[in-house]
Amino acid sequence: MAKEKLSIVKIGGNVIENKQALETFLEHFSNLEGRKILVHGGGKRATHIASKLGIESNMIDGRRITDADTLEVITMVYGGLVNKNIVAKLQGLGIDAIGLTGADINSIKSDKRPVKDIDFGFVGDVEKVNHNAINKLVSADFTPVFCAITHDKKGQLFNTNADTIASELAIGLSKLYHVELFYCFEKNGVLMSVDDDDSVIDFMDSGTYQELKNDGVFHDGMLPKLENCYYALEEGVSRVFIGNPSVISNKDQKFTTLYL
Amino acid sequence: MAKEKLSIVKIGGNVIENKQALETFLEHFSNLEGRKILVHGGGKRATHIASKLGIESNMIDGRRITDADTLEVITMVYGGLVNKNIVAKLQGLGIDAIGLTGADINSIKSDKRPVKDIDFGFVGDVEKVNHNAINKLVSADFTPVFCAITHDKKGQLFNTNADTIASELAIGLSKLYHVELFYCFEKNGVLMSVDDDDSVIDFMDSGTYQELKNDGVFHDGMLPKLENCYYALEEGVSRVFIGNPSVISNKDQKFTTLYL
Repeated sequence: MAKEKLSIVKIGGNVIENKQALETFLEHFSNLEGRKILVHGGGKRATHIASKLGIESNMIDGRRITDADTLEVITMVYGGLVNKNIVAKLQGLGIDAIGLTGADINSIKSDKRPVKDIDFGFVGDVEKVNHNAINKLVSADFTPVFCAITHDKKGQLFNTNADTIASELAIGLSKLYHVELFYCFEKNGVLMSVDDDDSVIDFMDSGTYQELKNDGVFHDGMLPKLENCYYALEEGVSRVFIGNPSVISNKDQKFTTLYL
Repeated sequence: MAKEKLSIVKIGGNVIENKQALETFLEHFSNLEGRKILVHGGGKRATHIASKLGIESNMIDGRRITDADTLEVITMVYGGLVNKNIVAKLQGLGIDAIGLTGADINSIKSDKRPVKDIDFGFVGDVEKVNHNAINKLVSADFTPVFCAITHDKKGQLFNTNADTIASELAIGLSKLYHVELFYCFEKNGVLMSVDDDDSVIDFMDSGTYQELKNDGVFHDGMLPKLENCYYALEEGVSRVFIGNPSVISNKDQKFTTLYL
């Protein structure tokens, strides 16, 4: 029997920061047909509130060092402020949303990132997505909204990269669904030339990706995203789409489709 | 067929503020047999963080005036910090917890409190508990953990009294379960004399309650709690227990049992 379709959509900080952009995106998301899951970050808002609380944000290569105070802010901002407002807005749009961290129903278990050169603090690397537990919600017609927090099943919460959460959820749920993964960010897709917003690559299979990567086409911010995407495709995800937030509703516009 | 038992336990701010007291309570809660739901406040923590953020807390008769900034703090603290840490701790104790506001799965819909003498701001009065949606979680063996936030199903979150949430949940779920409602606070039960901690009333039916109320036994803080409790009993809740947090596990100690 053919698997049912499930869309997993990840939105980044730029959409969350802009009230109007977020509302427009959530309308698009609410119109997306079939079963779906939303994954969001919220780093900019967290940085802003941490600063108001007198907590300094330390970033190394774009990754946040998460000490105990920072984890508190992240738990407040991602798990509370951002997540619950998105849930309420989606409910207003007729979507039966439910906000989750990886601790809720033990949906995403992580291990604390080992200290090598850098001690990232309370940062988790995903160990296991509990796809059967998540499917109890999805198959009950609820729409999960995940923030970028996981746990160790021993009482400790962790800050966890939202891109990774989206790809790991997509891989886990591919055991049950035909999963399409959408990464929404500020560009129209993966660009051939980082300075030219119109140089969107329409389609890219893994062979082309390797060639372009070897040619040095992709910059440092894009590379880990793409590695994440091809890993997800290799692990069973059907398609990955990368584009601006309206990619989920408007197939006439430019965006990038990744496949094996 | 006899209804299955469901315990609904409400804990107050004093337990949440004290790390050791909270851990002890959560251990007791995890040992409570059968299906269960936890409801928590978090007002003291919210006041503390609001103050750090330079937001003044305005209380009238113990009720918080909830302007837009205060609602943000409440959403962060109740829905994020307090709720998700409780969920993670319960997961560590082997309880498959899921943290919720009333917006999640549209579990508790409220109306904004009308402005009469006082404008309470973004405060919701419970209109409807969606017991069937909540039961999808309970019957899937998840343990809901509710914070004191509801919504209007139009995108707006509301601050809502946690005692009221507990009694409304108890009433709603009485349609499906034999519900026992526990209110845990700093005293050992309802006291005959507010200055004597040992003067716990063991049992109190509604007739005795009316007599003692007419005699002026109950002080201002206790009266609305008790009104809430007898209302819940009249609306189908089986029993209400009032005591300190260990009431849920230790039936040898003093506590108050309310019944019709």
